[in-house]
Amino acid sequence: MLGTMAFALLGGDAFAQNTAPAADPTPVAEAAAAGPESAYSSDEYIASDGYSTFAVNNLWICIAAALVFIMHLGFATLECGLTQKKNTVNILFKNVWIISTGILLYAAWGFNAMYPGDFNGFFAMGSWFGGNLNDASLTTAEYNAGYTWWGDFIFQSMFAATAATIVSGAVAERVKLPTFMLFAVILVGFAYPITGSWKWGGGWLDAKGFYDFAGSSIVHAFGGFAALACVLILGPRAGKYTKSGVRPILGHSLPLAAIGVFLLFLGWFGFNGGSALSADPKAVSYVFTTTALAACAGAVASIFVSWIIIKKPDLSMALNGILAGLVGITAGADTVGEGSAILIGLIAGVIVVFSILFFDKIKIDDPVGAISVHGVCGIWGTVAVGIFSFNPEHKFFTQLLGTLSMSAFAFIFAFAVFFILKLLMGVRVSAEEEAEGLDVAEHGAPAYNLN
Amino acid sequence: MLGTMAFALLGGDAFAQNTAPAADPTPVAEAAAAGPESAYSSDEYIASDGYSTFAVNNLWICIAAALVFIMHLGFATLECGLTQKKNTVNILFKNVWIISTGILLYAAWGFNAMYPGDFNGFFAMGSWFGGNLNDASLTTAEYNAGYTWWGDFIFQSMFAATAATIVSGAVAERVKLPTFMLFAVILVGFAYPITGSWKWGGGWLDAKGFYDFAGSSIVHAFGGFAALACVLILGPRAGKYTKSGVRPILGHSLPLAAIGVFLLFLGWFGFNGGSALSADPKAVSYVFTTTALAACAGAVASIFVSWIIIKKPDLSMALNGILAGLVGITAGADTVGEGSAILIGLIAGVIVVFSILFFDKIKIDDPVGAISVHGVCGIWGTVAVGIFSFNPEHKFFTQLLGTLSMSAFAFIFAFAVFFILKLLMGVRVSAEEEAEGLDVAEHGAPAYNLN
Amino acid sequence: MLGTMAFALLGGDAFAQNTAPAADPTPVAEAAAAGPESAYSSDEYIASDGYSTFAVNNLWICIAAALVFIMHLGFATLECGLTQKKNTVNILFKNVWIISTGILLYAAWGFNAMYPGDFNGFFAMGSWFGGNLNDASLTTAEYNAGYTWWGDFIFQSMFAATAATIVSGAVAERVKLPTFMLFAVILVGFAYPITGSWKWGGGWLDAKGFYDFAGSSIVHAFGGFAALACVLILGPRAGKYTKSGVRPILGHSLPLAAIGVFLLFLGWFGFNGGSALSADPKAVSYVFTTTALAACAGAVASIFVSWIIIKKPDLSMALNGILAGLVGITAGADTVGEGSAILIGLIAGVIVVFSILFFDKIKIDDPVGAISVHGVCGIWGTVAVGIFSFNPEHKFFTQLLGTLSMSAFAFIFAFAVFFILKLLMGVRVSAEEEAEGLDVAEHGAPAYNLN
Repeated sequence: MLGTMAFALLGGDAFAQNTAPAADPTPVAEAAAAGPESAYSSDEYIASDGYSTFAVNNLWICIAAALVFIMHLGFATLECGLTQKKNTVNILFKNVWIISTGILLYAAWGFNAMYPGDFNGFFAMGSWFGGNLNDASLTTAEYNAGYTWWGDFIFQSMFAATAATIVSGAVAERVKLPTFMLFAVILVGFAYPITGSWKWGGGWLDAKGFYDFAGSSIVHAFGGFAALACVLILGPRAGKYTKSGVRPILGHSLPLAAIGVFLLFLGWFGFNGGSALSADPKAVSYVFTTTALAACAGAVASIFVSWIIIKKPDLSMALNGILAGLVGITAGADTVGEGSAILIGLIAGVIVVFSILFFDKIKIDDPVGAISVHGVCGIWGTVAVGIFSFNPEHKFFTQLLGTLSMSAFAFIFAFAVFFILKLLMGVRVSAEEEAEGLDVAEHGAPAYNLN
Repeated sequence: MLGTMAFALLGGDAFAQNTAPAADPTPVAEAAAAGPESAYSSDEYIASDGYSTFAVNNLWICIAAALVFIMHLGFATLECGLTQKKNTVNILFKNVWIISTGILLYAAWGFNAMYPGDFNGFFAMGSWFGGNLNDASLTTAEYNAGYTWWGDFIFQSMFAATAATIVSGAVAERVKLPTFMLFAVILVGFAYPITGSWKWGGGWLDAKGFYDFAGSSIVHAFGGFAALACVLILGPRAGKYTKSGVRPILGHSLPLAAIGVFLLFLGWFGFNGGSALSADPKAVSYVFTTTALAACAGAVASIFVSWIIIKKPDLSMALNGILAGLVGITAGADTVGEGSAILIGLIAGVIVVFSILFFDKIKIDDPVGAISVHGVCGIWGTVAVGIFSFNPEHKFFTQLLGTLSMSAFAFIFAFAVFFILKLLMGVRVSAEEEAEGLDVAEHGAPAYNLN
Repeated sequence: MLGTMAFALLGGDAFAQNTAPAADPTPVAEAAAAGPESAYSSDEYIASDGYSTFAVNNLWICIAAALVFIMHLGFATLECGLTQKKNTVNILFKNVWIISTGILLYAAWGFNAMYPGDFNGFFAMGSWFGGNLNDASLTTAEYNAGYTWWGDFIFQSMFAATAATIVSGAVAERVKLPTFMLFAVILVGFAYPITGSWKWGGGWLDAKGFYDFAGSSIVHAFGGFAALACVLILGPRAGKYTKSGVRPILGHSLPLAAIGVFLLFLGWFGFNGGSALSADPKAVSYVFTTTALAACAGAVASIFVSWIIIKKPDLSMALNGILAGLVGITAGADTVGEGSAILIGLIAGVIVVFSILFFDKIKIDDPVGAISVHGVCGIWGTVAVGIFSFNPEHKFFTQLLGTLSMSAFAFIFAFAVFFILKLLMGVRVSAEEEAEGLDVAEHGAPAYNLN
């Protein structure tokens, strides 16, 4: 049956983030010739007509970076919309902090640590940020057929900050601001490049044949399971789980939440489409199609499943269904058929509803459903490659090993760091501050003045 | 006078959606050589420098698809902003449903039914969705000089869902959710590809020389007159038309409405610009210019006309003026002069004010002005091609015939289907639900929690 | 120390807005061969592979124009968010007016007046808008290697309207609508092209070697000091400066403000990236990187400085820090090192906090901080080129002369025009209207109906 789902066949992992070459200028030629994955885009392109192909490739990477950037606004508004009015300033402030420090830290260390993944394949230690503009090996196809050194950096840096943004949603409404700021910096600046290098940096998982096109595991499961660790330490929001059962804490603005999800959907065209790492017409257009199909299927599945279970057409479940489909297709957007993309999205849309209800049942309080959307669906998307991929080299157990390794690392790392921070400075605001709301308590001003 | 308005002359319909080739792989070569319309972009491009030109063309189609996607957020926020707070969840839910099912249905049937328009030119019945990635005739300029099969699909699918979105605004605040969901599916999945195929699929209107560059009729008038049919069956919102006259029902958030219109303006650069169906520098830059000029002229006209009539500077009229200008220029963005574009926009901006006031006077209740903006201005834009076009082959009466045919089909089809749905399941919520608001009544939760 | 900051070296002003050629078709060949600045992009590109390179260049200019367009939504939502609820319709209306008339006026006069800067280099008087599509010298690399005549127009027109938008924020909540509408038209339509032509039109500042890559002075300082003049004439909002000290007037929606800043950040990739005036991979990717680094550094600096001074983590300062960094890097995004970009952003982030506090102290009431963000940081960014540029031809005193000349011109021009308008029609609403709010008083309807 899965065979009939796979309408199309790709010749191989023609395009994927793992073709990203070394940030370190030296081993570029090596990386460009490294294997079957990078061969396609490089050779074919350069052979065709040189400069202009390079220009269009690099332009797409830059535009894709801008699209991924706007996902950060999507995350911010989604998180605000699904939480209480009184914590809105706090959430926006966290998100400004995450994107700002995320890009700076990725420049300072992450980019060079993530690629190419020397140091025994566990993490790299590249040269200090700052390419020389006069060095033609950074600005031509000699560096990579798809982008310059700076195109590479700006695109990858937008991904890096995402991990902390995912955590931000799960810990919202009760986390202590300075603690979270420090935690975000450590997670994005230090942990993300490590697991990233396992695959995209050419590390041990890459060597095993693990596949994660645009980051179902590397970005999403990573963020989702880091979030789970933090939530376990932090505990639920006051009043959520009472003796008389779960008391839903409603979001304060569903239009904000919907704006967030639509912006995330938009940005995902850059997240996945840009992960083709070139403007290869086949790759980009195909990835756009599978991405959109999975997102739509996720929404439809969540709508119907939640309607059956909750007995009403639930908007926040529909919105999370879109995200579930997007996270689900991210690992295999270039390597599964159109029908498989729809099926992956549908299953993700079902999973996310049950997962959100499950975590609520076991009293793990995740205000925006980040653990389910990014963590659980990230694992699903990664193993789905092992089920639906055209490429027989994508093995189910390798996919499972990869996603569990990354999720486990994220969970353990986040748990350890957040636990130490708890001992050192505390992770949770006082009960009074939580009741008053973080906006007035920590920031001294409300988000709205509507009277 | 019109002659002096037309500052520039195009050699022909060099670029337009009707150069879209068959989705069915077989007749591609045929379509590429089909006539003067496709000749320009294909031959000239391929001759120039092959692969890289194809890559930039396809990239633009994909980016344009992303821009059209964000119009769906624009429609959603505009509709929310211009309606009452208590129906916001319902509107957002409808819009998630429309985009999700719209793309899936277009994959399942619409795309292949719309192109190339066999079956006597009335509607096609192409092959099941799912192109084979290994088939080079789908991923190279052999398919089309401007895009791959998937680029074609993703761009066109974003258009398809728009028809139902237009209806959504007109029936807001009182339509029954399951009925609307079913209606939207039938309209997008079945009716839109039929009229679309008349022109873009190479059907009977195309054979007659009808011209509709990016869909003033195919998308906008189609949606607007389907909306009119539904509103006639549905009736006005309770309390709108009283014995003592029209009681305005104010929108609950003009910032949301403004966000919507600016996002629609942004997305229209993809809607019109992408309809050049290539990155042809002349075509894309020219269409961007005429599109922006008409939008701005529409706003200025609406501002002054409404100021004179209503005696105040009315924001929602200014916003609708932008949209009127955009809808007006859509049919001829590549085939009229800059001055003509401004004039088309100005007239659209005048029309929309009078049209909105007219429909209110005859008690046709359209909360967002969708019938006027998309229906009436869609007709205006289409016939304006017959007045202002450089191309002497664009005849006024053919334009009139085309737009009236499509509008009539949309009206009759929507009327029939919505009427049957009324008999089968009802189309309107109960008076109690309408008074309470659909958010709590149908979805069980309010959109805002601001206290 | 600055030397070690400048990690990279550019060969010259390879890419910059001042390579923009004449809008007048005649002197194009001349402009293309005009000097070292235009030589790079033109010759190298055309030589490489002709048509497809031209197509990707022009596509980027068009997409960049769309990105700059969305900055207008960013400005609108930022201004709304930081002001009171009762003036929201007024602000949105002003912003619709500015973009609409801005583009039309730039078509009617500005574009031809700004380029190429004949008439003794003070202002030009080009031909009436309306290029001939059949004139190949407007649609090929013969016009410019980076774009067609229309690509040039649409990109530049989006910049033009920005000047008035900056003023709009500073005069918000008390300016008389018709007066502002007239002022905006005069500023955008007449004054902006004059100072613009001094540099980008090849005028006297260009001849002196002044450098302003994407408009720290030409757009931002110009707008900021025009704003200062208007605010001086207009006076502070009622109740802001009382005998008992400054009474903060809180913005009504920080989510709107944050949406605005993120959209501005997004649009700035087009504002700066598009100012490379081609898709040159080195230029675009490098400018994206410096732009993002400076914005992030600005945010981090503002967060810490304001936290120290105001003793709390202030969201609006963090948001203004992003903008300060963006304005700061705009003049030199292509000509300073990565480390310098970070430093420029950090300093801008410090400056903006002190500047906002300073203007409040001297009772100059600027609701959104526009004078500080655009005016003061615009000057900083321009002189920063004289400090950090790779290019030894960029002299500190020339930069200072240029930015002060433009700021002074903007200030004097705006002061004179606004003063005359004050005498002719008044510039300020009545105390009653101000207390009631402009939405109901001038527009007859509130922005929100949330009950």
